[in-house]
Amino acid sequence: MDITSRKNEKAVHMKKLGVSKEYRRISGEFLCDGVKLLEEAVKSGADIRQVFLCGDIQVEIPESARVFTVTKEVLEAVSPLKTPQPVVFSVGMARENLSGDIKNSIILENMQDPGNVGTVIRTANAFHIKDVILTGACADPWSPKAVRATMGAVFRQRIREMTLEELESAGREVPIYGAALSRNARDIRDVELGGCAVAIGSEGRGLTRELLSICSGELIIPMSPGCESLNAAAAASIIMWEMTGKQL
Amino acid sequence: MDITSRKNEKAVHMKKLGVSKEYRRISGEFLCDGVKLLEEAVKSGADIRQVFLCGDIQVEIPESARVFTVTKEVLEAVSPLKTPQPVVFSVGMARENLSGDIKNSIILENMQDPGNVGTVIRTANAFHIKDVILTGACADPWSPKAVRATMGAVFRQRIREMTLEELESAGREVPIYGAALSRNARDIRDVELGGCAVAIGSEGRGLTRELLSICSGELIIPMSPGCESLNAAAAASIIMWEMTGKQL
Repeated sequence: MDITSRKNEKAVHMKKLGVSKEYRRISGEFLCDGVKLLEEAVKSGADIRQVFLCGDIQVEIPESARVFTVTKEVLEAVSPLKTPQPVVFSVGMARENLSGDIKNSIILENMQDPGNVGTVIRTANAFHIKDVILTGACADPWSPKAVRATMGAVFRQRIREMTLEELESAGREVPIYGAALSRNARDIRDVELGGCAVAIGSEGRGLTRELLSICSGELIIPMSPGCESLNAAAAASIIMWEMTGKQL
Repeated sequence: MDITSRKNEKAVHMKKLGVSKEYRRISGEFLCDGVKLLEEAVKSGADIRQVFLCGDIQVEIPESARVFTVTKEVLEAVSPLKTPQPVVFSVGMARENLSGDIKNSIILENMQDPGNVGTVIRTANAFHIKDVILTGACADPWSPKAVRATMGAVFRQRIREMTLEELESAGREVPIYGAALSRNARDIRDVELGGCAVAIGSEGRGLTRELLSICSGELIIPMSPGCESLNAAAAASIIMWEMTGKQL
């Protein structure tokens, strides 16, 4: 057994990766749990850094990763789950080379549910969306809940964080459409979305006026009368299907 | 104050509606919480039965509902939320007249996440899907979590529970397509879905062989190579968009 104390510095590091957004940014790593995610990380060639094992698993871990056997107590202290999986591991964020235009990208503003953010990343990856761009106060895409909801797409999908100012500048080259429920929004079926970016707002309030002001136009998904809105991740899925999925 | 004890029989009734699927079936009612859902229930003409109020709210409750003021302690005992909303209420399930064919319906088999089931109901209602049909071991659509995820669509959407045998019989008149990841599945863009039903399986395992055996064919949403699947509610949203949403 390599690590038997939850105060071991490697264990403390893993624990902090699970709970602190700031610490994830400083260290450039994030925490994942479970055999399924580990398989996805290996398959995707993710930068696996540190693996905590408690029990036997049938995954071939690349040699570059540092593997430690740990006690159940350590695993329980580190894991974000009440019933921990037999493995937790850390992965380096792929945040280099994230410049470039915002064509065929989806922009999330203030999307606060980590499950929704993770689901959007998963769908984006399935449909060849170029970048998932987060702005404002979104749930952290590298939080354990969001990572789990991506089902491994987090290892493959380009994810960027941009300010409103950066988006405004990028929007001068690539049209940004904002998903909105306003009357002057254009029906999503009538707009050519190829080569554009589309922005989706928070679960409760939609896009802010500031974000809408940098958009080239507003889009609406047609709905039955009396329906106010769709779930944010459901709306995003349909938009991404119309943007790039349908062309696959 | 009308009710001050959590042992009051009306309070016990509400509590049981929140926690027990069986009790909901026996009493034909379900529990909702929050001002937003109450507004939706009123707007939708739902059969509101019993309302527990703790504090002032600005909703005009129909006279047919029995309204009780309750103490904070009673509300906390009854509410499924840790931080209760100022109102919880019960609504009668609209389960009469749920026969008829399964045209333009979505079938969920073993969909276990209440958030996914609720999101499907919400999207179905927005896109004029005729019936949401549950089969196998789905999360209860009338559980508080699922109800919350519907954002009020539960008051308007036809929801049915059917056995495999009933579906098999219905499938003789209306073709059922099964969403699957098999190689012989047909691309969703190549199938005329008008007038059909589409079945979607569980988050982890998809449709059972038994359900697939009563399908007229299998459907797949095209995805990037290396992607195994979409979130169940995201896949359902895209399928319902292709079935009926696009025609709105």
